[in-house]
Amino acid sequence: MSTEESPDPVEKEENHLPDMKEMRSVVLTGFGGLNKMRVMKRPEPTPQEGEVMIRVKACGVNFYDLMVRQGAIDNPPKTPLVLGFECSGEVESVGEGVTDFQVGNKVMGISNFGAWSELVTLPAKFCFLMPDGLSFEDAAALPISYVTAYILLFEIGNLKKGRSVLVHSAGGAVGTAIAQLTKTIGNITLFGTASAHKHETLKDDWQYLFDRLQQDYHQEVKKVAPEGVDLVLDCLCGDDTNKGYSLLKPMGKYILYGSSNVVSGETRSFFSFAKAWWQVDKINPLKLYDENKSISGFMLQNLIFNQGHVEVLRDVMVEIVKLYKDGKIKPVIDSVYAFEEISEAMQKLHDRKNIGKVVISPLKEPQPKPEKPLDSQASVSSDGEKEQEKAEEAK
Amino acid sequence: MSTEESPDPVEKEENHLPDMKEMRSVVLTGFGGLNKMRVMKRPEPTPQEGEVMIRVKACGVNFYDLMVRQGAIDNPPKTPLVLGFECSGEVESVGEGVTDFQVGNKVMGISNFGAWSELVTLPAKFCFLMPDGLSFEDAAALPISYVTAYILLFEIGNLKKGRSVLVHSAGGAVGTAIAQLTKTIGNITLFGTASAHKHETLKDDWQYLFDRLQQDYHQEVKKVAPEGVDLVLDCLCGDDTNKGYSLLKPMGKYILYGSSNVVSGETRSFFSFAKAWWQVDKINPLKLYDENKSISGFMLQNLIFNQGHVEVLRDVMVEIVKLYKDGKIKPVIDSVYAFEEISEAMQKLHDRKNIGKVVISPLKEPQPKPEKPLDSQASVSSDGEKEQEKAEEAK
Repeated sequence: MSTEESPDPVEKEENHLPDMKEMRSVVLTGFGGLNKMRVMKRPEPTPQEGEVMIRVKACGVNFYDLMVRQGAIDNPPKTPLVLGFECSGEVESVGEGVTDFQVGNKVMGISNFGAWSELVTLPAKFCFLMPDGLSFEDAAALPISYVTAYILLFEIGNLKKGRSVLVHSAGGAVGTAIAQLTKTIGNITLFGTASAHKHETLKDDWQYLFDRLQQDYHQEVKKVAPEGVDLVLDCLCGDDTNKGYSLLKPMGKYILYGSSNVVSGETRSFFSFAKAWWQVDKINPLKLYDENKSISGFMLQNLIFNQGHVEVLRDVMVEIVKLYKDGKIKPVIDSVYAFEEISEAMQKLHDRKNIGKVVISPLKEPQPKPEKPLDSQASVSSDGEKEQEKAEEAK
Repeated sequence: MSTEESPDPVEKEENHLPDMKEMRSVVLTGFGGLNKMRVMKRPEPTPQEGEVMIRVKACGVNFYDLMVRQGAIDNPPKTPLVLGFECSGEVESVGEGVTDFQVGNKVMGISNFGAWSELVTLPAKFCFLMPDGLSFEDAAALPISYVTAYILLFEIGNLKKGRSVLVHSAGGAVGTAIAQLTKTIGNITLFGTASAHKHETLKDDWQYLFDRLQQDYHQEVKKVAPEGVDLVLDCLCGDDTNKGYSLLKPMGKYILYGSSNVVSGETRSFFSFAKAWWQVDKINPLKLYDENKSISGFMLQNLIFNQGHVEVLRDVMVEIVKLYKDGKIKPVIDSVYAFEEISEAMQKLHDRKNIGKVVISPLKEPQPKPEKPLDSQASVSSDGEKEQEKAEEAK
C-alpha cells in the first residue's frame, strides 16, 4: 500500500491481546521505499532494569533512517521494526535501579532503533536531562546532530582558532550544528556545499558556499584556498572522499562521517551503492606520512551501540548542554511533521530540501492533503522510474 | 677511508681559497654506511637576508640522519653535504632584516640539513631563544624530539586525561619526550616497547614495557587492554603499522611518524626497505568509518621544509619553552660525542642503545680509542657482512 492510497495510515499489528494498552509507532515493514513506512498500533512497553520510559513529544529524523529503510547498512535487523534513533519527552516511569531520573523529568535520548513511538524505553545511560528553556522539538534535534558535529570538530578534528573547514550538506542538521559550534572558537573559515536555493539563508554563517550540482566545488575551493583547508567533513563518500583528501593542507584532517551518496533513489540501488564504494581510493599510511595528513571515520550509531563506547557520548552531551545554557547553540528546526507524514519527512531529507533538522511528533495532526498531488508528493509514490530519473538528475 | 683507518678524520675540501676562514663540519661524502661520514674543513658561511648565524655548541642526532645517510629518503639532495637538522649555540651575526635576534643571544634551531657545523646559518623563523637555565646540550635535544612528541600527542592525537598510548622506542629521544609531555595532562596509561635492558631505567614513567625482540607486544597489549588503546605512535612502519591499527580502541588514532624498520643494517638494504613498505596494509576510508578509527602520518622535516608549513612549529615551540620554564619537561641526554665520533653516535642510535637524546658537539674532544677495537666498535667498520649479520640478528 503506497502513501498515496492512504495518506493517514494507522494499522494494527495482528495477534496482540485485546486488553493490552496500545501506542502508535512508525514502523518499517520491510526494506525498501517510502511505501514500507507505516504508523501502526503496538503494545506499550515496560521499562526493564536500568531503563527509562519516555512519553515522547518529538523525534529527530536522520539520514541514517533513510539508509536503514533501504537496508543499506551492515547487519540490518529484521523487519518489521520501529525506526528512529532519538527522541525527547517526559519520563513516564523508570525501571529498577534507575536513580538519575524521576517521573516527570524532561529528557532527550538516543535509542538503538525504536525512537519513533509514543512511548520509548531507553537505558538510562542514553538519556539526558533537558536544560531549562529547550523545547521538546529542539531537544529532539540535539543529541545525534550536535554530538556528531562536536566529535567531528573537537574530538577528532581538534579544530583550533584560525583554521578552515569544508563541510558538505552545509544546510543539513549536522551542517547547521557545525556552523554554530565553530563560532565558539572564533576565526574559522567555513566552506560549505549546499543547494543554491539555501545559500541566501546560510550566507551569514558560511564564508564560501558552493552548489555541487552547478559548480565544481573542488576547483572553487582550490581557487580560494590554493594551499587547501585544515579540516574536511564528508557525509557523502564516493568520489567526494578522494576530492576531500586532495583538498587538505599539510596537517589537514579528512573525516568521513556518512555515505549519503549511496542513497540516490527512493529504493536501494546496487549501482549507486557499488559506485560510491568503489570510487573511494584506498590509502597507504605511508602516503599520509609523506603528506602529513590524517583520515578518520566516524559513525555514532556504530560507536555507541555496536562498539559499546558510550563514554564519549556522555562527555560530549555535558558540553553540548553547557553550550546551550550559555546561549552558544540553538537547534535549527526545518519542519515538524506528524507521525503519519513520515513519508514527506523522509522525502524532504532525501531531496536535501531541509535547512536544519526534520522532526516528527506523535502530538502533531497530519496536514490535510491537497486533492491534486503536488510535484513534491509525486516522488513519494512508489514509481521507481520517476525516482530513477530524479536520482540521475541529481548526480 | 674508513673510520678505523682514521679515528679522528678531519679533511679539507679541495679548491677552496687559501685565505678563506674555515670551520669544521660533519660531512656525508656519499650515500652509504658509516664510512661515508667525515669531519671536514669548509669555508665559513655568511648570513643572508633574514638569516641568523649561530656559533654552534651542540647538535641533535636524529634517526632521520641515519636514513639520509643511507639515501633512504625521497628526493635525496646531492652529496657531499653537511648533515644535521638541529643545533644550539650563540648568535654570531645576523643578516639584513633580522630584528628578533641579536649577537650573543643563546638560541636553538631547526635546519634543512647543515646543522652539524661550527657555524650554521638559519632563516630566523627556524630559530628560537633558549630559555634561562637550559644548557646548550639540552637545547640541541629540544626542537625536533619535543616538537614531534607534542604534535603527535596534542595536535594530531588530541590526547586527553584518562586515555592510553602505545609508543615504540619508548627509550628514544621522542619516547622520553612523550613520557614527560603526557604527564602534563594526567592519568595517561603508557604502553611502550624498548629493549629489555632499558626497562629498569624507564619503568617509573611507563606502566607497561615490552621488548619487541623477546615478546609478542601485540598479544601482550591485548592481554592488558583487550579493548585496545586510544593512541598508537609508530616510528617503525612495516608490519607494526598493521599491528598498531589493530590495537586501536573505537575512537582510537594511529599515527605513523617514522619508518625505522627500513633501516636494518648499516647500509641501505633494498630487501628490508621493500619488506617494510609492502607490509603496510592500504586502508579504505570506509573501514575507518565502520570502525570509528583514524590514521595519520607525521614527518616534521617534510612539513616545514618541503611543505612550507612553519606556523605549527613556531606555535608548538612557544608551548615547549613554556613547559620547560614551568619545570614540566627536561630533555634526557643519553650521551654527547665529539664531531669526530659521529660514527659512534650514529651506531648507538642504529643499535637503539640510547636512552634519550644523542648529541654531538664541536667543542668536545674525541675520547682516545682503546688499541683493540671493542665489540661495539667492530660494527663501525665498513664490513658489510658483519653488519648484515647484526641486522638479521636484530629482526
